Amino acid sequence: MTDSSQLRINGQRLWDSLMEMAAIGATAKGGCNRQALTDLDKQGRDLFVKWCEDADCSVSFDTMGNIFARRAGSGSKNGPELPPVLTGSHLDTQPTGGKFDGVYGVLAGLEVIRTLNENQVETEAPLEVAVWTNEEGARFSPAMIGSGVWSGEFEQDYAYARTDKEGKTFAEELARIGYQGDTPAKPRPLTAAFEVHIEQGPILEAEEKQIGVLSGVQGMNWYDLTLIGQPCHAGPSPMEGRRDPFMGLQRILDQLYQLAAEHAPWARVTFGDIRAEPGSRNTVPEKLILAVDLRHPDQKTLDAMDQRFREIAASVANDTGLEHQIRDEWRSPAVAFDSRCVEAVRSAVADLGYSNKEMVSGAGHDSVYISRVAPTSMIFVPCEKGLSHNEAENAQPEDLEAGANVLLHAMLKVAK
Amino acid sequence: MTDSSQLRINGQRLWDSLMEMAAIGATAKGGCNRQALTDLDKQGRDLFVKWCEDADCSVSFDTMGNIFARRAGSGSKNGPELPPVLTGSHLDTQPTGGKFDGVYGVLAGLEVIRTLNENQVETEAPLEVAVWTNEEGARFSPAMIGSGVWSGEFEQDYAYARTDKEGKTFAEELARIGYQGDTPAKPRPLTAAFEVHIEQGPILEAEEKQIGVLSGVQGMNWYDLTLIGQPCHAGPSPMEGRRDPFMGLQRILDQLYQLAAEHAPWARVTFGDIRAEPGSRNTVPEKLILAVDLRHPDQKTLDAMDQRFREIAASVANDTGLEHQIRDEWRSPAVAFDSRCVEAVRSAVADLGYSNKEMVSGAGHDSVYISRVAPTSMIFVPCEKGLSHNEAENAQPEDLEAGANVLLHAMLKVAK
Repeated sequence: MTDSSQLRINGQRLWDSLMEMAAIGATAKGGCNRQALTDLDKQGRDLFVKWCEDADCSVSFDTMGNIFARRAGSGSKNGPELPPVLTGSHLDTQPTGGKFDGVYGVLAGLEVIRTLNENQVETEAPLEVAVWTNEEGARFSPAMIGSGVWSGEFEQDYAYARTDKEGKTFAEELARIGYQGDTPAKPRPLTAAFEVHIEQGPILEAEEKQIGVLSGVQGMNWYDLTLIGQPCHAGPSPMEGRRDPFMGLQRILDQLYQLAAEHAPWARVTFGDIRAEPGSRNTVPEKLILAVDLRHPDQKTLDAMDQRFREIAASVANDTGLEHQIRDEWRSPAVAFDSRCVEAVRSAVADLGYSNKEMVSGAGHDSVYISRVAPTSMIFVPCEKGLSHNEAENAQPEDLEAGANVLLHAMLKVAK
Repeated sequence: MTDSSQLRINGQRLWDSLMEMAAIGATAKGGCNRQALTDLDKQGRDLFVKWCEDADCSVSFDTMGNIFARRAGSGSKNGPELPPVLTGSHLDTQPTGGKFDGVYGVLAGLEVIRTLNENQVETEAPLEVAVWTNEEGARFSPAMIGSGVWSGEFEQDYAYARTDKEGKTFAEELARIGYQGDTPAKPRPLTAAFEVHIEQGPILEAEEKQIGVLSGVQGMNWYDLTLIGQPCHAGPSPMEGRRDPFMGLQRILDQLYQLAAEHAPWARVTFGDIRAEPGSRNTVPEKLILAVDLRHPDQKTLDAMDQRFREIAASVANDTGLEHQIRDEWRSPAVAFDSRCVEAVRSAVADLGYSNKEMVSGAGHDSVYISRVAPTSMIFVPCEKGLSHNEAENAQPEDLEAGANVLLHAMLKVAK
């Protein structure tokens, strides 16, 4: 048996697996379109299951189609049996997605198992690689529905009834591709859970760090802000008497960008969409509907930002003669990852000597839900120009290799 | 023969005509939906033609479906024959339009003729009441296409090929309702042209004036401004590195509202529509496309505003790391009405003793095109709350009566 501290994953084999998986649903621009529960998703799952069986894993899937590939543990030598150490991510992609988002986390987990197998290293705890269904939310909204049901965030009946744009339900599509298992999708004891993922942001690349050690995930609040004025004709109506939602919008954008600056560097304020009603070129609109996304890794700060947002909207509406409505679309509280899991990652990075940065994730991941029911943390590797959800998404083979090595050693530390 | 200075139109008959016309295409909310070249437009035209024939007018229509109802003149007593004095407006409405926009100008013209008939008043110049086809532009874009072709602004073939949302062409719909005449739609000599219209703005009501004496029409420029940034994920991407079109939008709105204030009280800056691409809630958009409408009654000032708009867009784009594009959608130069026609209106108002205000029109009207080929001016009456293009559009019978009296006496002054 090899000295496990010297173990390294096979970077070339990891890369080849990524490219073989990327061929399923490959797009002309070099990306991937392998949306959840499509025929292509089935092909990707089938390939993954075959690889896991080739690696002597026992594969099962639950009632949500989440896949678990298990490498048996040797059992505890001192004390009680350890429950499994889990890693994983997702295989589904955005319609114009990339080759690495999610897939990297799944195949890095497989590569960990392959590496342990060929070096005949046993662990006390079983190891599992999970594929969570419909992480992207691109075909069936909301995102992360597989891990969400598993962790108790959503009811399974709610998930089953979700429809795609053609009206097909999640349940019928899951059954159709043959991945609806019998095991109930619900939590069970885990020693730890890890997820390695491309950063989907520019920080590691900009700071020339190879590994991100994640301490948590930003909390995020989604809102629709509606500003309601009085439609009037662009020509005859004097400027001073107008109740023009764009006048309110201008001040709200200004003050919310200031709010982000007040809580720099971690606060995020994003406006992803806007719509005018009636949207006629020569009429002051009656309404503007603005999508507002506020994020901060510290929940108290996010709550304070939420409060200020409501005050700003009310005060601007009052000053500009508008009415306003705020609809809470979604909230995802800030997550602080398990300190023991974070320490396992930190320690693995130190052992391996990779440059690194402690950071929080700005995006949602399956690990957000997993962390509610099991000790969890995440590892990031750089992605080119921070681009993700994009066919041009790219990552360097040496960074992907480094991230998988960190995953390997973090898992080894907790699985013994 | 009556002393013509004592002539007054019959306000009740004018109101009854308006209400009878409004019944054609009446909507549940008290407005009117009688779009150009529909069956309902034909019914409205038929009713108008019948009324004109009852008033001993000779009715003709041209190749654009513009209707001209003519009351013969007595001929010149001294000097050359005078060409016709024309008035008119349009009978078509917005899909959720009102009972007065356009229709009032047509039926006030008819009421002038009825009044002269019953008082046996002759004029040297013939009088004509025109109905211009498709003023609204609601069914077939652009607006004012009937008067536009007649005055040489548009080619007739261009107008004929315009399609509605169902793909029906202007030409086939014009022929179908039986209003495609043989007379070419082109200018001929006119002594003067007048148009009386509801204000479609709040100024007269707010200042408690009964008549607007119009000296011209605002020039207006329509643009699409596109701000192009770099899409990025709302969470991971730090605020400072973003190329966020909303950051540019905020500054552009701010500076363009300042530009309007610098050219107060007549400058108008309106944003009627906006669209984000891709418009995903948790992604900084790649593009914002903003509809910009700039107006001023003085063409030199409007040109200066156009120049400043381009400078502001370029400088903000540069400062915020965005690209920008400006597409010129439409330009309508400022119009100064014929001084003799304006004086005829001013003098008629003075004779009649109505409260009044000298003003410019902020909206486009058929008179904008007519003024390019004939001496023209307009008369406004108040409309309730400035609301128009709205089923709730309303005007007071006494104001409509006053406006028609001004029209009558202005026409008499120039028709002799």
